[in-house]
Amino acid sequence: MDIKEILQSKAKVIDEKLLSSIPETDPPDLAKLMREYPSRPGKRLRPVLLMLACEAFGGKQEDALISAVGLEMFQDWVLIHDDIEDDSESRRGKPALHLQYGMPLSLNAGDALHVVMWYSLIQNREIIGDDKTFAVMSEFAKMIKETTEGQHLEIDFVERGEFNLKDEDYFKIVHKKTSWYTTIAPFRIGALIAGDTNIDRLNEFADHFGKAFQLQDDILDLTSTTEKFGKVVLGDLYEGKRTLILIHLINNASAEHKEEVLQIMRKTRQEKSQQEVERVLELMKQYGSIDYAIEAAEKHAAKAKEGFLALGLPETKAKEELLALIDYVVKREL
Amino acid sequence: MDIKEILQSKAKVIDEKLLSSIPETDPPDLAKLMREYPSRPGKRLRPVLLMLACEAFGGKQEDALISAVGLEMFQDWVLIHDDIEDDSESRRGKPALHLQYGMPLSLNAGDALHVVMWYSLIQNREIIGDDKTFAVMSEFAKMIKETTEGQHLEIDFVERGEFNLKDEDYFKIVHKKTSWYTTIAPFRIGALIAGDTNIDRLNEFADHFGKAFQLQDDILDLTSTTEKFGKVVLGDLYEGKRTLILIHLINNASAEHKEEVLQIMRKTRQEKSQQEVERVLELMKQYGSIDYAIEAAEKHAAKAKEGFLALGLPETKAKEELLALIDYVVKREL
Repeated sequence: MDIKEILQSKAKVIDEKLLSSIPETDPPDLAKLMREYPSRPGKRLRPVLLMLACEAFGGKQEDALISAVGLEMFQDWVLIHDDIEDDSESRRGKPALHLQYGMPLSLNAGDALHVVMWYSLIQNREIIGDDKTFAVMSEFAKMIKETTEGQHLEIDFVERGEFNLKDEDYFKIVHKKTSWYTTIAPFRIGALIAGDTNIDRLNEFADHFGKAFQLQDDILDLTSTTEKFGKVVLGDLYEGKRTLILIHLINNASAEHKEEVLQIMRKTRQEKSQQEVERVLELMKQYGSIDYAIEAAEKHAAKAKEGFLALGLPETKAKEELLALIDYVVKREL
Repeated sequence: MDIKEILQSKAKVIDEKLLSSIPETDPPDLAKLMREYPSRPGKRLRPVLLMLACEAFGGKQEDALISAVGLEMFQDWVLIHDDIEDDSESRRGKPALHLQYGMPLSLNAGDALHVVMWYSLIQNREIIGDDKTFAVMSEFAKMIKETTEGQHLEIDFVERGEFNLKDEDYFKIVHKKTSWYTTIAPFRIGALIAGDTNIDRLNEFADHFGKAFQLQDDILDLTSTTEKFGKVVLGDLYEGKRTLILIHLINNASAEHKEEVLQIMRKTRQEKSQQEVERVLELMKQYGSIDYAIEAAEKHAAKAKEGFLALGLPETKAKEELLALIDYVVKREL
């Protein structure tokens, strides 16, 4: 099964709806900023998951389109704000919005896009009725609550210069910041639109799926090239991101190596030299930290698959495609 | 009629609902940041207007409470973000949130509060039914679209260092950035909840009301004291805000004085000395720029009153209180 084909076939209809949902503005420049991230190439993994989940649970993919587009819009506005918060340099192969247009206008454009997301969700009414429309909105509210909590936790570690973390600290942030909007919400909302009334049972396997996804993302940051990955490779090391890989290294290195790593990691992005960052990477390889994350990713992907199969959904094309996507997530190279 | 009593009597019920609507978070600190601006003293003018408007149009004030609280929440999250965008120093008598907790956590808390606003509006369902709940949400979306457009326009003038503006430029920004959420939306939403189906006719008089409010705000910034005003006096001059007063000065000063003013205004907040800022104030007095704004404020307040009376609403206590509030807005000292 060609995953890229699955993603691409749906990405077109999602992107069309996404861009046409962003209204013109006075001044026109505001809409230009709002359309910048949605126009950049992306995998559209989350909206595709939501639409496939809806079908796998017995619903129609068309009924899930507005919610799927809303999820992509969520990612777009939250990335604008995250990039400001983290002072990220690039996004989807181009400069971060605030480096292109300045922080104030970009922050404001993120807010404007956030509102368009909610306005779009109101339009669900004509298609899935009042009850489901409100239920989908409540799911978005729950999802964003988790995401902002995860973001708070992560920023707090960075601002306190805290590197003495446990695996659980990492997985808590991943649960809130990645799993909720990448996998848990797509399954919950897709199933809800299909008429499923017991969506809480989906959280566990979807969370494994989200963790596998984030672990693979962290691994690719260290092992991929810029062209493939669309963002600065080793960016997580420059940014000082608390990945499972870094936590493993700090908790397993010799006292001397640990001190060396901490001295480098405590520097700001600008202060770190290429050589220093590559030294941390070398130690990660030496201590098996990347392999540790690869194993964890595979374990979570296996649990995700197992939990998904245990739902006993009827054999459909959508189910087959979802299974392939779980595999893809740990095997992807971008 | 004691305006402060009217505002205070309703502020209590609004504040209780406001603070209880903000949920606990994990980590708890996020909720602490979200509650910071809502906990600081404020006039609560906008939610009170919305509740009074609902009653004046024949509805029950209780039916408007959730929407009124949503409006106050909107102001709270948008001020967190505006303060970051404008690098404001203080808000409601205390340091701006990003100066207290840093930009990244504050930006994120603003987003979290934004979501609570929408989640609260969903709760309208039980009280005013599905149709009005969706209609109120659409009004919020329209209002925030206008606000972000106004903010974009204003930031753009600041970033381009543009001071050669006309009165219309000022009033366009005030229409979008102040009137929409201060007066237009409160009347539209209050009337909508009361069952009025022709709310577009309210925009004109409410816009005059909003303009009178903003002009008085600009005047107070130059004539009030910190204790009374709750923010740095002459703050607009330090920030380089394009007020009608400044525009009048620049368009009416001699070539020499104009150049002097522009040289000072083009400096950053940090570069401006107290002496320089007071020199601009002196010239504003000399050229009658403050008087020009006072006249404009009175003219807009009179038009607001006239337009409101022309609606021919039945004589109620709420109507009387709204009229008193229009007067208050240009006579207030804080």
